Amino acid sequence: MLKTIGSKVWAIPGGHMPLLSSGAEPRDTSRDELCVLNAGHFDAHLQLTIYFEDREPVGPYSLQVTAQRVRHIRFNDLIDPQAVPLDTPYAALIVADHPVVVQFTRRDTSQSANAIATTLAFPG
Amino acid sequence: MLKTIGSKVWAIPGGHMPLLSSGAEPRDTSRDELCVLNAGHFDAHLQLTIYFEDREPVGPYSLQVTAQRVRHIRFNDLIDPQAVPLDTPYAALIVADHPVVVQFTRRDTSQSANAIATTLAFPG
Amino acid sequence: MLKTIGSKVWAIPGGHMPLLSSGAEPRDTSRDELCVLNAGHFDAHLQLTIYFEDREPVGPYSLQVTAQRVRHIRFNDLIDPQAVPLDTPYAALIVADHPVVVQFTRRDTSQSANAIATTLAFPG
Amino acid sequence: MLKTIGSKVWAIPGGHMPLLSSGAEPRDTSRDELCVLNAGHFDAHLQLTIYFEDREPVGPYSLQVTAQRVRHIRFNDLIDPQAVPLDTPYAALIVADHPVVVQFTRRDTSQSANAIATTLAFPG
Repeated sequence: MLKTIGSKVWAIPGGHMPLLSSGAEPRDTSRDELCVLNAGHFDAHLQLTIYFEDREPVGPYSLQVTAQRVRHIRFNDLIDPQAVPLDTPYAALIVADHPVVVQFTRRDTSQSANAIATTLAFPG
Repeated sequence: MLKTIGSKVWAIPGGHMPLLSSGAEPRDTSRDELCVLNAGHFDAHLQLTIYFEDREPVGPYSLQVTAQRVRHIRFNDLIDPQAVPLDTPYAALIVADHPVVVQFTRRDTSQSANAIATTLAFPG
Repeated sequence: MLKTIGSKVWAIPGGHMPLLSSGAEPRDTSRDELCVLNAGHFDAHLQLTIYFEDREPVGPYSLQVTAQRVRHIRFNDLIDPQAVPLDTPYAALIVADHPVVVQFTRRDTSQSANAIATTLAFPG
Repeated sequence: MLKTIGSKVWAIPGGHMPLLSSGAEPRDTSRDELCVLNAGHFDAHLQLTIYFEDREPVGPYSLQVTAQRVRHIRFNDLIDPQAVPLDTPYAALIVADHPVVVQFTRRDTSQSANAIATTLAFPG
């Protein structure tokens, strides 16, 4: 049995999703994605908070990542308690009840060819 | 209440902004961005210093990030005490009075389609 | 003699390889890559496990990285015990018997121009 | 006086420079870059070693980064003791006599539009 890798708190300061997309939906839709690995043996419950430049944080968004599974979640698809707005700078803070590992990826198809970026989130 | 995530010192060695841009301004302007999350309950005051290859550092640039807010700041927009020059290698050092989390993003539209990159800054 | 840099456990939550590629194969084939540096003086044996969203993990994939060598391994090329599927979110967990350093890179040529991304894996 | 941020040992497993470039040279030449910030008050002397998949490491490459300066160095430009080959997987290990911060960036213009990627190096 592997010791569970990860942290219970993660931050992503650089969220931003373009208004525009090109190519086929949903494959090429411009998006930010949260990639969460739960390599442990307990289901992890995550509380996500979204921060903005000029108003109060919104949340929590509740997410579950089953034990021994990964989930890739588009921020564009988060709607409860509120859709994450496009073309708006935001940050995300994730708090989990078991250790997980979080990576942030972006696909930007706002111009004629896709662009991608990725980084680990910052562990607390 | 969440314990505040982050660090008070951050470094970004790989700054460089192209001279050229394509697409619509300011949306597609080539740029480096500093993304700062202040998930804490105190306003954070940041002192930014810019380092160069062949001359003395310039700064401090003073920035504020309100408690429970994020800010995305284009290096292209920093003008006091001095504009950050284009097409010039630079580094940034950020010192804050409260813990923050810093991510660095780049949008490069110098050729016919955009390119993007991102990384966490290095915490001190 | 340098002290060996690295960790024995690494995680990559954000794996995903597009179905489509453009350009010349294999140079431009869309892919995720695992880049492993073994700067030490002992050969390192790696056990790789692949995690999915909706089924049990698959593995171990056995890899060796000779002392004082690097290896860049395309996930597309992993076939034993099972090929890593395209167009499917996955995560990778690497466990080594000696410290190594792991970086993750992606080349996406699913649209008309290539896009690239890279990050360090998360050390356990 | 700021306390010096950084580490004396850094690793980059994912080096690879394409044979092809498009656009204007040297601005758009495909390349990997080493970005080193020396925020300290002593000049830093770096010894760089390049690792390969199938032969002995090459080095040391000697580099200096003056106190309070940054340097962006293209791996393509490293020639002593040996040019770093194109289209070849490699890794880099950096050992410095004073703390520095190291970021790795890539510009790939092998197809019709540029692609970029960046990550921090791994601190030892």
